[in-house]
Amino acid sequence: MRVTVWGENVHERRDDSVRAIYPDGMHTVIADGLRSLLDADVGTATLDQPEHGLPADILAATDVLTWWGHGAHDDVDDAVVDRVCAAVLGGMGLLVLHSGHYSKVFRRLMGTSCSLRWRNEGERELIWTVDPAHPIADGVPQPIVIEAHEMYGEHFDIPPPDELVFVSSFAGGEVFRGGCCFKRGLGRIFYFSPGDHEYPVYFHPDVRRVLANGVRWAMPRVRGEVPDSPMSERGWWE
Amino acid sequence: MRVTVWGENVHERRDDSVRAIYPDGMHTVIADGLRSLLDADVGTATLDQPEHGLPADILAATDVLTWWGHGAHDDVDDAVVDRVCAAVLGGMGLLVLHSGHYSKVFRRLMGTSCSLRWRNEGERELIWTVDPAHPIADGVPQPIVIEAHEMYGEHFDIPPPDELVFVSSFAGGEVFRGGCCFKRGLGRIFYFSPGDHEYPVYFHPDVRRVLANGVRWAMPRVRGEVPDSPMSERGWWE
Amino acid sequence: MRVTVWGENVHERRDDSVRAIYPDGMHTVIADGLRSLLDADVGTATLDQPEHGLPADILAATDVLTWWGHGAHDDVDDAVVDRVCAAVLGGMGLLVLHSGHYSKVFRRLMGTSCSLRWRNEGERELIWTVDPAHPIADGVPQPIVIEAHEMYGEHFDIPPPDELVFVSSFAGGEVFRGGCCFKRGLGRIFYFSPGDHEYPVYFHPDVRRVLANGVRWAMPRVRGEVPDSPMSERGWWE
Amino acid sequence: MRVTVWGENVHERRDDSVRAIYPDGMHTVIADGLRSLLDADVGTATLDQPEHGLPADILAATDVLTWWGHGAHDDVDDAVVDRVCAAVLGGMGLLVLHSGHYSKVFRRLMGTSCSLRWRNEGERELIWTVDPAHPIADGVPQPIVIEAHEMYGEHFDIPPPDELVFVSSFAGGEVFRGGCCFKRGLGRIFYFSPGDHEYPVYFHPDVRRVLANGVRWAMPRVRGEVPDSPMSERGWWE
Repeated sequence: MRVTVWGENVHERRDDSVRAIYPDGMHTVIADGLRSLLDADVGTATLDQPEHGLPADILAATDVLTWWGHGAHDDVDDAVVDRVCAAVLGGMGLLVLHSGHYSKVFRRLMGTSCSLRWRNEGERELIWTVDPAHPIADGVPQPIVIEAHEMYGEHFDIPPPDELVFVSSFAGGEVFRGGCCFKRGLGRIFYFSPGDHEYPVYFHPDVRRVLANGVRWAMPRVRGEVPDSPMSERGWWE
Repeated sequence: MRVTVWGENVHERRDDSVRAIYPDGMHTVIADGLRSLLDADVGTATLDQPEHGLPADILAATDVLTWWGHGAHDDVDDAVVDRVCAAVLGGMGLLVLHSGHYSKVFRRLMGTSCSLRWRNEGERELIWTVDPAHPIADGVPQPIVIEAHEMYGEHFDIPPPDELVFVSSFAGGEVFRGGCCFKRGLGRIFYFSPGDHEYPVYFHPDVRRVLANGVRWAMPRVRGEVPDSPMSERGWWE
Repeated sequence: MRVTVWGENVHERRDDSVRAIYPDGMHTVIADGLRSLLDADVGTATLDQPEHGLPADILAATDVLTWWGHGAHDDVDDAVVDRVCAAVLGGMGLLVLHSGHYSKVFRRLMGTSCSLRWRNEGERELIWTVDPAHPIADGVPQPIVIEAHEMYGEHFDIPPPDELVFVSSFAGGEVFRGGCCFKRGLGRIFYFSPGDHEYPVYFHPDVRRVLANGVRWAMPRVRGEVPDSPMSERGWWE
Repeated sequence: MRVTVWGENVHERRDDSVRAIYPDGMHTVIADGLRSLLDADVGTATLDQPEHGLPADILAATDVLTWWGHGAHDDVDDAVVDRVCAAVLGGMGLLVLHSGHYSKVFRRLMGTSCSLRWRNEGERELIWTVDPAHPIADGVPQPIVIEAHEMYGEHFDIPPPDELVFVSSFAGGEVFRGGCCFKRGLGRIFYFSPGDHEYPVYFHPDVRRVLANGVRWAMPRVRGEVPDSPMSERGWWE
């Protein structure tokens, strides 16, 4: 099990408040959480690396990629986006985290705007399991409580999820489909709405549990090539 | 468009608090709401009538049936349940309201326990649209606000809905998939979680709007017989 | 991994043609196939045993149950049907095979008639994978070829499957959604349309592979009780 | 009801065999079919027109767009693709026809490769309804028979359809999910696999019926703007 944790790593270096929570970057904390729960080889990659740390050989060797971005979505090179999307369609698992909903990668794989409503006032978020036998919900309390977080609210402009696992409520009253599974090509995609960079959400043990469950769920069943064009054939019997 | 509103009509006669809200029964208020918004022939039927007011000819003449029950689910005759379920599978639309989640009819059509969590403390409920282009959400505000209502919360033990239209939050923090569409046989089923009999929910204009939209959506596209057994055939070409 | 293979075992004792293929019953051949591919404790149960071989302790100890029946659906005791359905809703996996589509168990869990079209003329069936990354399709050829089989055709009156894995075509031109996944309660259900008792389908290596994959997929993630009634609560925070 | 029929109109002018069937272009035949069955204002647009006949004002005035392309997908200007996709997400209905599966528009809205298998030998295609109460299946025979057509076969690399209406079989034995519904943003998308330009499929009365049904189904329930970015809000109560 080889996991690559991709982090934009911009706020952590630019904003004192974020650096205070994640001095070594959010990606290192996410990676540490996965290492603590999975028997996996977990690496990291960031925006400022050549090819954003995601050259072809790294993606080919990655079973599951996690993606967190926020302020620099437009700085992600289209060639890398192409490569990541092709890898997902070819079977690589993908976890899209929080503001990654607005990444080029997620929007291209969804085909929709992926817009939502938000309000950042440090509200209590409750994450309710609506599919208790789903492997991503394994071992999490009902509900997961995040004491202070940014609100993400409906309408969330995504395709109807293939599986809906979690729905959040916020102290202000909004709801959000914050745990959604999608199949695209040979790949599995899990969107999970925690956590904003201004809150220590990726230290939260239940959030870590969900991320680890998500990685296990998104593991490739098969890897393949995405065809460049429809495939002609004479007949299956020949 | 012929609609039959079925009401248990037990609490309204037994409990002063309910009778104060619905002196002529909840079914009459639901029916009035539909009449005010639809060009439809709306009748009513209740538990205490012969065959619960649902003999075969009434069902055959009904396009959409609405079902509200709470305290007397077990008193509904199994022969009537058979007949209603067969009508739905044969194309009749069905709206299941609030505590109707635990009716024999709904549980049989779903195949699951349809259990849920509840707490009756008169909390504020917010009903959020998660599918804004769905015809059942046409013209409703985001969110619908019900000032005081019983809480219904997850996990709601239903099959994954074919379409999820509304998700509620409650002042206490719970969420509920309160607006769910199902296809079963030739029929369409819409479950809508308002309203408890102790609150005047069926006078609420937005709730009325949803019910009218739901009736329109559930109108039969085709009516047919439910086969008693698999159908043998020689060949489609003969 | 504990699997119980349930077989009606009527045709095998009554019909010479069936006994010639399955002298020890279809259930033993299905069980042998699973044993050859899974590291599992595989037992069998049949209609003629007390409680049809499915007393409460056997079900409680079963991770996945497979169900084949055809001519004696009505002879299955309702108390056993209740028990099996409750076990599925409580998390036990269920594989429903071929004519099991018309069993009391499957029909109750689906809520629909489960009728279909059929023609038994020993036609070639091709089973096409439409979800190649699904674990149940792991390692099967595209298509699986069954040289001679009974035709099952649309319309198959089931709820829209939560996942569609296989679609069959027949020499006569019909199609059939023959590999369908459903979530019900805490349980996973896989319907797989092979094999009729008049053909040696359960010796087919690709069919065996699908059954083994299906058992792995249907393994419980969690086991629980099905509530008898909605659960009141004071509040999740208390 | 305003429909715009978009046709690539390349083969009809270049290939004698195609011109013999569709001397005035496939788009005119598709449009005639819709006019004969719908009370609609049906216009056409083609690749060789300025902005491919799809300037902003035409799209804004279009309720449902149909799209047929084959040999010139790469010649469709990206700015027009952007505009069409934005219109769909904003509520415009879209029917994607046959080889339009590989258009830029469909691939972008799906997020997958949309590849498939094909063989062009003039085989008999049977189109089976698997959702008989769906409005798009209204009034069509079981099955629709197309005497000679190109084979399209699985695996078709699309997201799991939100609704599956038709499944085709071919004389060679393949199957294809040829009638699929998708919700994207506020828009409805129907993919329908007939018809190849070398066969007179768009004169077929059952195919025409499906196209007319599809247009009715895809009519906008609501039109809106696609947000350029997530929307901040103070609170729904303010």
